[in-house]
Amino acid sequence: MAKTAGILIIGSEVLSGKVVDQNSTYLAGELRALGVDVQRITTIPDDAEIIAQDVRTFAEQYDLVFTTGGVGPTHDDVTIAAVAQAFGCGVVRHPLLEDVLRRHYGEGITAAQLRMAEMPEGGRLVGEGDLSFPVVAVRNVYIFPGIPEIVRRKFERIREQFREQPFILRRVFLRCDEGQITDDLHAVLDRFPDLQLGSYPILNNPEHSVILTLESKSPEYVEHALRFLLDRLPPPSIVRIE
Amino acid sequence: MAKTAGILIIGSEVLSGKVVDQNSTYLAGELRALGVDVQRITTIPDDAEIIAQDVRTFAEQYDLVFTTGGVGPTHDDVTIAAVAQAFGCGVVRHPLLEDVLRRHYGEGITAAQLRMAEMPEGGRLVGEGDLSFPVVAVRNVYIFPGIPEIVRRKFERIREQFREQPFILRRVFLRCDEGQITDDLHAVLDRFPDLQLGSYPILNNPEHSVILTLESKSPEYVEHALRFLLDRLPPPSIVRIE
Repeated sequence: MAKTAGILIIGSEVLSGKVVDQNSTYLAGELRALGVDVQRITTIPDDAEIIAQDVRTFAEQYDLVFTTGGVGPTHDDVTIAAVAQAFGCGVVRHPLLEDVLRRHYGEGITAAQLRMAEMPEGGRLVGEGDLSFPVVAVRNVYIFPGIPEIVRRKFERIREQFREQPFILRRVFLRCDEGQITDDLHAVLDRFPDLQLGSYPILNNPEHSVILTLESKSPEYVEHALRFLLDRLPPPSIVRIE
Repeated sequence: MAKTAGILIIGSEVLSGKVVDQNSTYLAGELRALGVDVQRITTIPDDAEIIAQDVRTFAEQYDLVFTTGGVGPTHDDVTIAAVAQAFGCGVVRHPLLEDVLRRHYGEGITAAQLRMAEMPEGGRLVGEGDLSFPVVAVRNVYIFPGIPEIVRRKFERIREQFREQPFILRRVFLRCDEGQITDDLHAVLDRFPDLQLGSYPILNNPEHSVILTLESKSPEYVEHALRFLLDRLPPPSIVRIE
């Protein structure tokens, strides 16, 4: 079984259409490439009660949880406190993070800026040594900020620890109507019930009108399913295979 | 109180990083512009049990629910059946939709293609007359397909029925560190507790480093809060106001 993951985007600015979320797309793509099965992506407001409840649920349901947003010095940055609340623990200041902040802001550092050194009690730093400001994690929850450039920079440094056996993906490009091949798809799934089989209609493309995706962690399984499928599909409908 | 909404993106292809979801961004922006308060966006796989459970929860928690994806003729198109399951009702074929499909596909129409005429029992068509293929709705749940072009075309035709009093948005662009103005932001919220106040750090912009957003449905409330805020902020930090 693949490791599962849930992604929690904390951002009232996304819900209100002011900012386009880039983090879920990035993390979903990266995690899939690492062989992790992302099962849910949820965007919620900067509300400590809601965040705490979702973090608790996600942490129970998925092997890995990634949050982005709500980390910073202002009133709407409530993620750290909410994650602590989710696990019924307090918030503590981490000396290493405090040190980084004091060096960055100097003498005039404010109490608000020092809040960024806080983490839920029992939390840990991930990527220490590789990142000047490491990722805070508690149990299976990894806490990222909201700014996409920083999410990328941080995730790149710690991504290898999430690597699993990869998914194998084959794609079949067809020129036909989806409704003409449903029996073939059902036959494939009857024979290969563990295959992840997707069928996607494509509009306004002169070459193909449907893309089928066949996925599994077993290369043989995908190849056998692909061969079985290709034997059934009407040959003129097949444009190409990747 | 603003009407609330939840958006449910049904798409294993989004979770697996193969397709970038455009529908939630579009719907969130449109709904906000219509004065609707989007409170949750969730992406889930093409799994009838999961969809049914989330539809049930969303329909209870929010005034309006919009789903995209999982509508079509193939094995992974399970949204209609799942919404029916969510409300404990069956699936019926709608004569108008059947008629549209039969005209489109002609004599050779397949059983799979006819599945697209199905709707949950007790459902209704929205946008009839304006749309050749109307939107299916059940109670407060509006069911859209996954293809972004079609979502846009359909939503444009029915959007006016969701119009509420608009949100008023003012933005303040600042050159400062967020951590230096947190007391001012707290003071604004103490005085204007119903204000939606956002603070967003901006990287690598030569002009401004923070954007504040002030929102409410009352223009006076936003203006008073804005004036109160501007009186407190250090004048050199203010770059411009929109």
